[in-house]
Amino acid sequence: MNAFATALAEAPHGLELVWDTTDPREVRRQIRTGQYRGHTGALAKGFVQANLAIMPLDYAEDFLRFCQRNPKPCPLLAMSEPGDPRLPELAEDLDIRTDLPSYRVFRDGEYDGDVVSIEDLWRDDFVVFALGCSFSFEEPLVDAGLRLRHWEDGSVCPMFLTDIDCAPAGRFHSKLVVSMRPFTPADAIKAVQITSRYPRVHGAPVHLGMPELIGVEDIGRAWQGDDPKLAPDQMPVFWACGVTPQVAVRSARPPLAITHTPAHMLVTDVRNASLAVG
Amino acid sequence: MNAFATALAEAPHGLELVWDTTDPREVRRQIRTGQYRGHTGALAKGFVQANLAIMPLDYAEDFLRFCQRNPKPCPLLAMSEPGDPRLPELAEDLDIRTDLPSYRVFRDGEYDGDVVSIEDLWRDDFVVFALGCSFSFEEPLVDAGLRLRHWEDGSVCPMFLTDIDCAPAGRFHSKLVVSMRPFTPADAIKAVQITSRYPRVHGAPVHLGMPELIGVEDIGRAWQGDDPKLAPDQMPVFWACGVTPQVAVRSARPPLAITHTPAHMLVTDVRNASLAVG
Repeated sequence: MNAFATALAEAPHGLELVWDTTDPREVRRQIRTGQYRGHTGALAKGFVQANLAIMPLDYAEDFLRFCQRNPKPCPLLAMSEPGDPRLPELAEDLDIRTDLPSYRVFRDGEYDGDVVSIEDLWRDDFVVFALGCSFSFEEPLVDAGLRLRHWEDGSVCPMFLTDIDCAPAGRFHSKLVVSMRPFTPADAIKAVQITSRYPRVHGAPVHLGMPELIGVEDIGRAWQGDDPKLAPDQMPVFWACGVTPQVAVRSARPPLAITHTPAHMLVTDVRNASLAVG
Repeated sequence: MNAFATALAEAPHGLELVWDTTDPREVRRQIRTGQYRGHTGALAKGFVQANLAIMPLDYAEDFLRFCQRNPKPCPLLAMSEPGDPRLPELAEDLDIRTDLPSYRVFRDGEYDGDVVSIEDLWRDDFVVFALGCSFSFEEPLVDAGLRLRHWEDGSVCPMFLTDIDCAPAGRFHSKLVVSMRPFTPADAIKAVQITSRYPRVHGAPVHLGMPELIGVEDIGRAWQGDDPKLAPDQMPVFWACGVTPQVAVRSARPPLAITHTPAHMLVTDVRNASLAVG
């Protein structure tokens, strides 16, 4: 099952989505009104989807420094004013309290369930962070003719916890989490070239080949996501992963923090192509 | 012994070169007047040095198509009019018959000795090709803080004959020859980024890691150059090499062809940095 089929299967109307799934504003409207609660991967193709982190101002000040010091795992696309649920640079109509299909709640760093709206949890000191996500660099990889195994077999991209320390900031610290995509060496070189143009969505890989050098003992067993399959002519290519800031948020144990539920992202009006540099 | 010391040791005056070795015009003048016959590696730093191939027009027409079809091993910087020993886009005063410290002569594809001038061999149907060389991309690698083993230990960069066929053109054909530089995975990624900006001097690597996939059975034994030494945290990174067109020229067996002698390059007035794209 590919990502598109997955999203449709999770939609309330099965394969019969009758609204315009290519329009990010319409996607948000369907989510906001409770019509859609599924994965966002196959929706609003070509537009940036973002990782979400919300926390009280007291923690947000540390977290901002954590992002500044670790831009590859934590590429900050937008940050709200305290208490303001809008991020107008990502979408004019955006209300962060209602516009994601699913939210994950953490209390004192512990998972406390998923919710479909955070209107009841909203606080006047909440600060919203939207962080770049690998969806945005996977699209130009596929456009360039590279094949992504997890797109083709509908699996979840494997992630690994490395032994690389992120630069800490206040109460925030984490080992670097990486996502892994297998490529032939020639395609790995192309993937470096293409993703280097997208520093705001994790950018170039942090490592390739030789997984043992970053503390990945068994490349066949994912820490999160599905176990990878590497063809004999493929090497593992590792990108800094947006799960890293989630680990950091949990480590800081804020009294209340909210993230997106995995695969249920913030859909924005920013085009992926507009993030390209060089 | 590093490359600079090597060049000086080969100079007629030992370590006491009294002319301005940083000025490409002065380098050519010293060579032209027979004052200097050594390696060019340490001279005119920052300026493009080029591989040379000279052959009769009848063969040059095929060779031009060979370069067009194989731009990574054969990045054509300049090409003369038939019988014209000048390449004004590379240096206004350049006379290709006298301005290299050593030339290699091939008759019917067979090596027939090195000479210090080709004035006596010149023909009215000779066409001159100047091809980009890895010196130009090694400089920005080192400027970026990457370490090149063969610079540090004064060895010759190892080269390997791959099993990859170049696209043939007329009588010209060759397997791809690659040069190899060892890097940690993180530095290999940087090296891809940096050399991608220099497509006119071989550009991005063609392969990394997994040497067996390109027909390199023993990474410890160079086909040409010095045998490599790879640290346990390094992988081999392979670039298309300017020896490839030399193999192709020999395979075509022109009655007379002339190249530079290895490490005795054409020194131009073009700055390496001016070749950068993106």
